[in-house]
Amino acid sequence: MSRLLSRFHSPRRLAASITPLTRSLKPRNYASASPILQFDWEDPLASKNLLTEEELAISETAERYCQEQLLPRVLQAYRDEHYDPKILEEMGETGLLGATIDGYGCAGVSTVAGGLITRAVERVDSGYRSGMSVQSSLVMGPIHEFGTQEQKEKYLPGMAKGKIIGCFGLTEPNHGSDPGSMETMARPHPQKKGYFLLSGSKTWITNSPIADVLVIWAKLKETGKIRGFLVDRKDCPAGTLSTPAIKNKNGLRASITGMIHLEDCPVPEANMFPEVEGLRGPFSCLNSARYGIALGTMGALEDCIARARTYALERKQFKGNPIAKYQLVQKKLADAATDAAYGTLAAIQVGRLKGEGKATPEMISMIKRQNCDKALHNARVLQEIFGGNAVSDEYGIGRHVANLFVTQTYEGQSDIHSLILGRAITGLQAFV
Amino acid sequence: MSRLLSRFHSPRRLAASITPLTRSLKPRNYASASPILQFDWEDPLASKNLLTEEELAISETAERYCQEQLLPRVLQAYRDEHYDPKILEEMGETGLLGATIDGYGCAGVSTVAGGLITRAVERVDSGYRSGMSVQSSLVMGPIHEFGTQEQKEKYLPGMAKGKIIGCFGLTEPNHGSDPGSMETMARPHPQKKGYFLLSGSKTWITNSPIADVLVIWAKLKETGKIRGFLVDRKDCPAGTLSTPAIKNKNGLRASITGMIHLEDCPVPEANMFPEVEGLRGPFSCLNSARYGIALGTMGALEDCIARARTYALERKQFKGNPIAKYQLVQKKLADAATDAAYGTLAAIQVGRLKGEGKATPEMISMIKRQNCDKALHNARVLQEIFGGNAVSDEYGIGRHVANLFVTQTYEGQSDIHSLILGRAITGLQAFV
Amino acid sequence: MSRLLSRFHSPRRLAASITPLTRSLKPRNYASASPILQFDWEDPLASKNLLTEEELAISETAERYCQEQLLPRVLQAYRDEHYDPKILEEMGETGLLGATIDGYGCAGVSTVAGGLITRAVERVDSGYRSGMSVQSSLVMGPIHEFGTQEQKEKYLPGMAKGKIIGCFGLTEPNHGSDPGSMETMARPHPQKKGYFLLSGSKTWITNSPIADVLVIWAKLKETGKIRGFLVDRKDCPAGTLSTPAIKNKNGLRASITGMIHLEDCPVPEANMFPEVEGLRGPFSCLNSARYGIALGTMGALEDCIARARTYALERKQFKGNPIAKYQLVQKKLADAATDAAYGTLAAIQVGRLKGEGKATPEMISMIKRQNCDKALHNARVLQEIFGGNAVSDEYGIGRHVANLFVTQTYEGQSDIHSLILGRAITGLQAFV
Amino acid sequence: MSRLLSRFHSPRRLAASITPLTRSLKPRNYASASPILQFDWEDPLASKNLLTEEELAISETAERYCQEQLLPRVLQAYRDEHYDPKILEEMGETGLLGATIDGYGCAGVSTVAGGLITRAVERVDSGYRSGMSVQSSLVMGPIHEFGTQEQKEKYLPGMAKGKIIGCFGLTEPNHGSDPGSMETMARPHPQKKGYFLLSGSKTWITNSPIADVLVIWAKLKETGKIRGFLVDRKDCPAGTLSTPAIKNKNGLRASITGMIHLEDCPVPEANMFPEVEGLRGPFSCLNSARYGIALGTMGALEDCIARARTYALERKQFKGNPIAKYQLVQKKLADAATDAAYGTLAAIQVGRLKGEGKATPEMISMIKRQNCDKALHNARVLQEIFGGNAVSDEYGIGRHVANLFVTQTYEGQSDIHSLILGRAITGLQAFV
Repeated sequence: MSRLLSRFHSPRRLAASITPLTRSLKPRNYASASPILQFDWEDPLASKNLLTEEELAISETAERYCQEQLLPRVLQAYRDEHYDPKILEEMGETGLLGATIDGYGCAGVSTVAGGLITRAVERVDSGYRSGMSVQSSLVMGPIHEFGTQEQKEKYLPGMAKGKIIGCFGLTEPNHGSDPGSMETMARPHPQKKGYFLLSGSKTWITNSPIADVLVIWAKLKETGKIRGFLVDRKDCPAGTLSTPAIKNKNGLRASITGMIHLEDCPVPEANMFPEVEGLRGPFSCLNSARYGIALGTMGALEDCIARARTYALERKQFKGNPIAKYQLVQKKLADAATDAAYGTLAAIQVGRLKGEGKATPEMISMIKRQNCDKALHNARVLQEIFGGNAVSDEYGIGRHVANLFVTQTYEGQSDIHSLILGRAITGLQAFV
Repeated sequence: MSRLLSRFHSPRRLAASITPLTRSLKPRNYASASPILQFDWEDPLASKNLLTEEELAISETAERYCQEQLLPRVLQAYRDEHYDPKILEEMGETGLLGATIDGYGCAGVSTVAGGLITRAVERVDSGYRSGMSVQSSLVMGPIHEFGTQEQKEKYLPGMAKGKIIGCFGLTEPNHGSDPGSMETMARPHPQKKGYFLLSGSKTWITNSPIADVLVIWAKLKETGKIRGFLVDRKDCPAGTLSTPAIKNKNGLRASITGMIHLEDCPVPEANMFPEVEGLRGPFSCLNSARYGIALGTMGALEDCIARARTYALERKQFKGNPIAKYQLVQKKLADAATDAAYGTLAAIQVGRLKGEGKATPEMISMIKRQNCDKALHNARVLQEIFGGNAVSDEYGIGRHVANLFVTQTYEGQSDIHSLILGRAITGLQAFV
Repeated sequence: MSRLLSRFHSPRRLAASITPLTRSLKPRNYASASPILQFDWEDPLASKNLLTEEELAISETAERYCQEQLLPRVLQAYRDEHYDPKILEEMGETGLLGATIDGYGCAGVSTVAGGLITRAVERVDSGYRSGMSVQSSLVMGPIHEFGTQEQKEKYLPGMAKGKIIGCFGLTEPNHGSDPGSMETMARPHPQKKGYFLLSGSKTWITNSPIADVLVIWAKLKETGKIRGFLVDRKDCPAGTLSTPAIKNKNGLRASITGMIHLEDCPVPEANMFPEVEGLRGPFSCLNSARYGIALGTMGALEDCIARARTYALERKQFKGNPIAKYQLVQKKLADAATDAAYGTLAAIQVGRLKGEGKATPEMISMIKRQNCDKALHNARVLQEIFGGNAVSDEYGIGRHVANLFVTQTYEGQSDIHSLILGRAITGLQAFV
Repeated sequence: MSRLLSRFHSPRRLAASITPLTRSLKPRNYASASPILQFDWEDPLASKNLLTEEELAISETAERYCQEQLLPRVLQAYRDEHYDPKILEEMGETGLLGATIDGYGCAGVSTVAGGLITRAVERVDSGYRSGMSVQSSLVMGPIHEFGTQEQKEKYLPGMAKGKIIGCFGLTEPNHGSDPGSMETMARPHPQKKGYFLLSGSKTWITNSPIADVLVIWAKLKETGKIRGFLVDRKDCPAGTLSTPAIKNKNGLRASITGMIHLEDCPVPEANMFPEVEGLRGPFSCLNSARYGIALGTMGALEDCIARARTYALERKQFKGNPIAKYQLVQKKLADAATDAAYGTLAAIQVGRLKGEGKATPEMISMIKRQNCDKALHNARVLQEIFGGNAVSDEYGIGRHVANLFVTQTYEGQSDIHSLILGRAITGLQAFV
């Protein structure tokens, strides 16, 4: 049993710090894969049947942490557009960071288990999940996959604990869906041998303002090929690196987002990923992150269903009937529950294939796109159940709606994934 | 020519106070009903052809005020959830308040012209339009329609100037879609003859925290019938009236919303509307407000189209093509432009009928529902064009999306209007 | 008053031949523009208010003819895939053919009145409307607009009576959405001066198997420019013209459709339209036909609403409640009635503009696309109300659904019109 | 290895009778669960990975039979509205009937394998699948589950061979979604002891005109409880049983449908199912049939995708580009492929649970509803790709569209399943 698991099996460890929740939802029945004799609206197609005991235990621990530790602070954090970096330390302690990596203090769980963790976090908030995904999939992931032994040993253990925070610099102000046109450049240092100078700007970078280490994708001046660099903030001379926060976001306000400006920032060659070249590097990381989003957004959708159901059962109109009794309300719940159940099964299937090395990027495109689209669509429809009350942020569903719109646009906007799929189906590309 | 019109014809009056806009849109071609020989994407089905010279002039003045005076402050106001009551004074000065009322310092314009004013305001922000609608349709409206001569003379001229602010208290915490079940009660004052004591709570009341006069709908204890009262804040003894603001809204953040708590608040009989009884009173006001929403939301949608189009023309991806060249983007624009054009024509038609006394409430239900639904739907789809950048509030479209969701739920949630229409079509009611 | 009108005013003329209908709908209240005090589900936004007395009378006569003469035979005609050419004679007698043309035995009614006629016919069946549209808009139209005086006098009077039947040959097997690439060629006759030889194939040509005169668009060999020819079947030497019917259609089975094969078919220069060159010719005709479709499909949709409403009121399930009482059913009816009302207003508006020479092709694209899309979508949704019974052709709605799908694809498939609109909105073309 | 399997392993057995197909699709890669390294548009989420070797073999044999034997005749059968009862004999020979039953000459395959058989058949035509489903799930199913040993031995072996044809009489003219209100009655025979007299009418009964044995659900006069009877046509006195065919259907024209009229039809008590009472009996059968539909419709959808893709690759417009290169076309294909992949995974999951006795009826409601809805929706959207050519029945997609609409309405109309799910989610019923 992994080290993580042993912790998962003493969940009381967290109990001392439980904050009482004013608007807590009925606790989910996290575990139990026992024979299904009754329909369970929280898991309509019994996806739990597909999980191992270990995966169920991991899911339960992650859910418990998230409901007990994250949920109580998200309302205020979202209002204030504030991200507490301690959350990453807590996640590290709970074993949630880089969880699918084996070694370096990481838990070494299955791909599906990794997805269950993102689902637990995103059930609370997509912003919290984003902060974790960046750390796990977009920074620890490429270091583990592409890094040298030195790089791994230097960064992974601290990152697993949440003591070192990472961010992922790919997107540029003028190049979103088309990273191959990036302008950030790495040129050999004219004076200092074995060093590159990095210049360029990245934007919409989760965690950038608080990151200790920044994965920067830049074109090598000599070759025009894209390479990955680990920029260690503490080694950057003053004026060569700045990471201003972007404020007043419409969504993901419980995460922190910023830009990265590099101006002749010197980076030793030892900090470059040794072999990976071109878009294969960043796309491989994105693939993992997208997988996490696919299962993660199902958590957000499930939370919307639970909230809408509770509201519909409690809200009475017209002769004291709970509005849950109305056909138009029931159809919204039925549609959402169906899409959540289908999306969960698809994500588990792709997770199993990914774990066996059989998943293609198009499969990830398919589930990332569909699950984000459906989570967003249904969250919006469920929001209608709240009527005028939906405008109050205390019901939580407006926050999910705003967040899920962002998940639909990042890491491959929905239409772009359509065209990736369209290319795979027809053999013809339609991007231009 | 009305007094309003004469002002409309010297638009330079406002020029001194124009704030330069950093993110101003190309000025709309407000007026001109000249022969259409070219397709105009801002008015695809030439609705201008249906307007009188006077209506075109009113529209132009309103648009100019809104673009020059309101647009520059909305971003910050929305961020800060702040509503400046001076806006009502400015609107009063410009002649926008109670504009369809004839006399009492009001402009006496046509129903359609009144709708063009709401469209101009909502092109900037649905919250600003809400504040104005409450003043015009929900307070000045019933005073004019149901009030005594004394009530009219006491309130309308000040309200037309925006010096007296009103609010409309119908919705209660437990009775949204079903106001007939309201619990607010008016009972004869046990000591003071000719007075009622009002008790009860209202919620989601636009303008309540800043209102000078509150239209309160309450059941008469003796009869159980709903009656309307003008509660004058300055006459309320301490502790009998409170109007706390509701903060942290998901939308309409540039408007101010609150509750109303009445605790044995004494109101003279002279402040009761003399004849109107039952839901006819509030529903008549809502009818006018809903008409304003139907045309107003078309303004918000048109602004989304303009913003998305501009973005799509400026944003380049994949070999330097503007994304406006992509089929998937063009379809979104075409769909939205179509719904805006159709919704505008429908609203003008109903406005004409309303002006002639031929509009039924179901017609208003139809256009309120459809135009809110379509504005919201298309705004969301257009938001996708902005990709990851949509998360920045500076592009304005996220604000419209959040606002339009609220317009869909208030003054008759979309599904409720479906059932009103369903009843009218089938003769059978399906509310319970 | 036009000659047509005088006939419209003695509707009893048709009475003798009225077939009793087993499944007739409650007669529509065709006329009456009296004050609207009650919501009329058949005309929810009182579009009748926008019509002249003359237009109302024309509409009434056309509706009467269609309900009394066409409705009784459509079920069998559709089953047998049979089109009775006598229908065109009857339509001619009733004054419905080429109705907007002034002179040559045509009625000279307004553009909107022309649309009301198509609506009346399509309320019965889109196939019947197609047969009429081809005669009126696609053959009489270009002869009137582009023809020489001789051509007009030779063909229009007989066509107005339905004694001469026409068809319109533009689409080719390999060139549907892109007629500019047509392959049909006209080359100077090598022996016979003043003659062309036409060769090529056209497909999906309504009326071709029964047409007396065929408008053929072909490229002039010398110039490569598209020109229009009137091919008179009786003048074609054996073997130079064939017009086989296409059978086993999925929709429009009450119309007749075929191919046109021309093999060195000699046509005198006098039969060429003298001036029009390029796609302007065919597109101008299509513009008129598309206008007719835009209002016509609203008739089919209205018929679906009427049929679904009747069914829902009569069908009882679960404790004897008519299913019209269910929220999910009412929403379908409300949505459909709304789209029908909106589409009708938009079509009337564009008709007015067209009558004044102010309509642009993009306006027609907009209403053709939207009205076909919405008619189809709502017809499909309404069909669900019939449950398993929908599979029976006697309820008529399946026929409308099948027909409306075809209207969505012909005379500009929906997506193509999106791109026409997208080009007009953005200034960029996205066809390739 | 089952007897069925041994046959599956000598597929050449069928080869002699292969009809050459003019419009055959590229043969699907039926088998092979080898490592997925490339995206397979025919199985985007590698559902094959979830199947056993045996299931893959069964699927392959079934697909082969259907493509080689059924596909060549469906076009004409659909045109003529003709069902050849020999098809059931062929299916019996191939081992497809009652395949999940163990013993009595049936193959005894897994629930999922049973679904793969329906998928193979429905890939050709939903009507053929309907005929088979009735035989297998609705007649053999209840005989096996509820019948006496004598009943099983008398009917199952002949039915497995397709020599005895069955039908299922539940739905009545006035009771579709609400079978509990049925009016068909069984009363004790006044003269003949041990016999019942059955009277009543059933409608929309697949196979009824050709059925040898009819499962009739009727209320026992004495108890008012619903019981099931096996009505053997050859034992019915003249005039007591008639089963007229219903013609002129809008869909499922390759299946045969009829009514059942019973007039004091004598049935021995030995032909009653001994224990099952109430709606549990018919609902249990429907549950199995619905499972087959859920996976079956995915076959129809996959065939639509394959046909649309082929068409889009072959059809060239605008400068010779295949229309498969257009974004609007690719999006349609991507959406459809996604829904097919998701629906397949969900159906396999529920099949596994059902095989283990863990599936609840609500799970079946969920996948029946969603898969029918999505198959229909996507088939319609894909049909648009064919433009005007879609009207020709030779492209096959119009037939699928018409069929799939029927599958959405039978065995629980989509809205009814919504309300079943809504009840399961909320605990409140909204049927009345």
